[in-house]
Amino acid sequence: MDSLPADAAKTRPAFARWLGTTNDVTRTFLAASQIPGLINMAGGLPAPETYPAEAVAEIARRAIAEHPGDTLGYGPIEGLLELRDALAQRFSSEALQLTRENVLVTTSGMQGLDLIGKVLLELGGVIAGQFPTYLGALDAWRPRAPTFRNLVLDQPGLDAIALFTGAQFAYTVPNFSNPTGKLVDLATRETLVDAAHRTGTWLVEDDPYGGLHYDAAPLPRLIALSARQHSSRPYDGPVLYMGTLSKEIAPGLRIGWVIAAPEMIAALTLAKQGSDMCTSGVTQRIALGALEAGLIEQIQPTIVALYRSRRDALCAALAEHLADTFQWEVPSGGMFVWATARDPRLDTNLLLKRAMEVGVCVTPSSVFDAVGENRRAIRINFTRNEPEKLAEGVKRLASAVKAMQANRN
Amino acid sequence: MDSLPADAAKTRPAFARWLGTTNDVTRTFLAASQIPGLINMAGGLPAPETYPAEAVAEIARRAIAEHPGDTLGYGPIEGLLELRDALAQRFSSEALQLTRENVLVTTSGMQGLDLIGKVLLELGGVIAGQFPTYLGALDAWRPRAPTFRNLVLDQPGLDAIALFTGAQFAYTVPNFSNPTGKLVDLATRETLVDAAHRTGTWLVEDDPYGGLHYDAAPLPRLIALSARQHSSRPYDGPVLYMGTLSKEIAPGLRIGWVIAAPEMIAALTLAKQGSDMCTSGVTQRIALGALEAGLIEQIQPTIVALYRSRRDALCAALAEHLADTFQWEVPSGGMFVWATARDPRLDTNLLLKRAMEVGVCVTPSSVFDAVGENRRAIRINFTRNEPEKLAEGVKRLASAVKAMQANRN
Repeated sequence: MDSLPADAAKTRPAFARWLGTTNDVTRTFLAASQIPGLINMAGGLPAPETYPAEAVAEIARRAIAEHPGDTLGYGPIEGLLELRDALAQRFSSEALQLTRENVLVTTSGMQGLDLIGKVLLELGGVIAGQFPTYLGALDAWRPRAPTFRNLVLDQPGLDAIALFTGAQFAYTVPNFSNPTGKLVDLATRETLVDAAHRTGTWLVEDDPYGGLHYDAAPLPRLIALSARQHSSRPYDGPVLYMGTLSKEIAPGLRIGWVIAAPEMIAALTLAKQGSDMCTSGVTQRIALGALEAGLIEQIQPTIVALYRSRRDALCAALAEHLADTFQWEVPSGGMFVWATARDPRLDTNLLLKRAMEVGVCVTPSSVFDAVGENRRAIRINFTRNEPEKLAEGVKRLASAVKAMQANRN
Repeated sequence: MDSLPADAAKTRPAFARWLGTTNDVTRTFLAASQIPGLINMAGGLPAPETYPAEAVAEIARRAIAEHPGDTLGYGPIEGLLELRDALAQRFSSEALQLTRENVLVTTSGMQGLDLIGKVLLELGGVIAGQFPTYLGALDAWRPRAPTFRNLVLDQPGLDAIALFTGAQFAYTVPNFSNPTGKLVDLATRETLVDAAHRTGTWLVEDDPYGGLHYDAAPLPRLIALSARQHSSRPYDGPVLYMGTLSKEIAPGLRIGWVIAAPEMIAALTLAKQGSDMCTSGVTQRIALGALEAGLIEQIQPTIVALYRSRRDALCAALAEHLADTFQWEVPSGGMFVWATARDPRLDTNLLLKRAMEVGVCVTPSSVFDAVGENRRAIRINFTRNEPEKLAEGVKRLASAVKAMQANRN
């Protein structure tokens, strides 16, 4: 082998194939926050002024000083016992009987998606996914090259049993879906849960936005509907309920959870063992302290009022400047308006480029399905920016649309 | 489809195949810490009294209060810029020129291993791995069912170029390997680095224990030797250097890092995007504050003195009670003694069961290779327990050995 060159950097082993199919949109958007003057309406970012920094700082100090073993040592893979108990209690109801065996603490909601892929997907495995869908879920499962069946929940004729049969799991964001902001109605929720029970297929209920409802009381969770169909203690039905503190306290904690049948929690725990061994005791104890102090309940009214007014400001600006170009429904919760171009020839991938040039950033629809087929819509975030900035962002977007149209004509 | 049962729980989709091949040893050991009276010498656990809890509590409070955006918001996937800069500076030398483009912050060292598997392994991909090897690395890569070539570094006749050729990467823990505690000598380090440069194969240098040297100055890192062979700025050679704060400050922070060529950092960043999006800003800012305050340098002499005395206590107890049954080398660093049975018929899987019955826990060698072929050795941790407990643990282990032998005769 002496004939090999002393440095063969050019002949390095290939990266795994999935890297050639990935998108770097999330990275672009996270980096976009560094561009001066850019109005970023692309990410799914909370308003930073809602972070309860002083309260969390003090909770953190006390957590570490008073529980050095829990916070600074290795903890159980499944999560801190007290935090699992607190989450089990928080989501239990008369029908839904949860114990800590139903709870896995995850390092962010995203990790929950990664772990679900790890335990349920062989290469090419089948997912029945609500479309358009969360970009992060596509990112999490891409290395396993899944086969997607499109679960379209807001059109008549949904045959959930056919779509679920033979799928490893179904994936849905029933509350104010990312990207469309849509709320899945009660009848459709019943249909999904019924299909999961009848087919045995796991049903993933991803619920980061459940606390952000602006116009009406929340609808029952899928996991609660499932427990009504078949009650057991602990819960052992087909729904995996995923939550996070990212929207209700702060994303920087990276604390999420999966609530599911004990056999699923056990499998996810083995997957987590090889992913990060355990979630930080520091952030888990902060989460526990925040839950015990009722921090979510304290700040939620402020967050909801703020986001409601920003939603209204965005929709007013859209009505003023872009009603000829786009149509949208006013979302009753969440963080996004989904706007579809009236002209099917308008390519929102191209619009993004124009928009970046004039200092505004939104998310093109192409990133929300597995093959990038929808190029006609945009997702606009309204939670991050103040009303004046939202209005200015929409104006810039309108000028980008005009520039595109002028260019084409 | 109406003939389907209303609850088909028994026909749920199968879990991914790798779950049938996994071990739950790590989980058993983490749970063992809950058994009253058990002396746990199995895990790789630091001494909790070394955690600088008061200092970290105050760093945490200030980090969150003074940097609410960095700590509580979403951060860049690659990690906080200031932390990447600090790590680049910490590991740079005249030959090794690092910039932030060389640094990825990971949510624990374990996540680094998971991400490396994600970007380099297709199903069945080839790894040249130092054996016996770190259990966590096997856990991280198991879902991709890799093919292992055994890189045996402490026997003559190592043909590194042959073993590296065609492998996706080589994996080694050169400083006080887990499980054997062995230090890879300078000549072998040069051989490994040379083989990586000649074949192009990536060389993973996992270094959680580099700061825990008890008898002599540290040897040069593989990445530093690589930079001497081929200097560039930023470093673009084949070595991936992995570090963590788990042994030098506290595992509960779950802060690790990978230092590598920018093209590798970019690939790992895409993998991290789909794993947990970004590492907690809280724990990253704590890590940065700890580095800036020189916390590692402050507490390291105490940790090293403590662990050296515990190593000596363990080895003295072994010499007194188990010299007839086992042989071992006194490790010059790290956290473990590797003891091999003199009698090849002694099965250490069975010994573990006996040992648990008499209240002591060590790790059987079968978990440190991909197929469980070595059943003749045990790994004994000496960092977690006080000398008296180590002595009592060894006595119990000796009684378990006697019970086994009595049973056989």
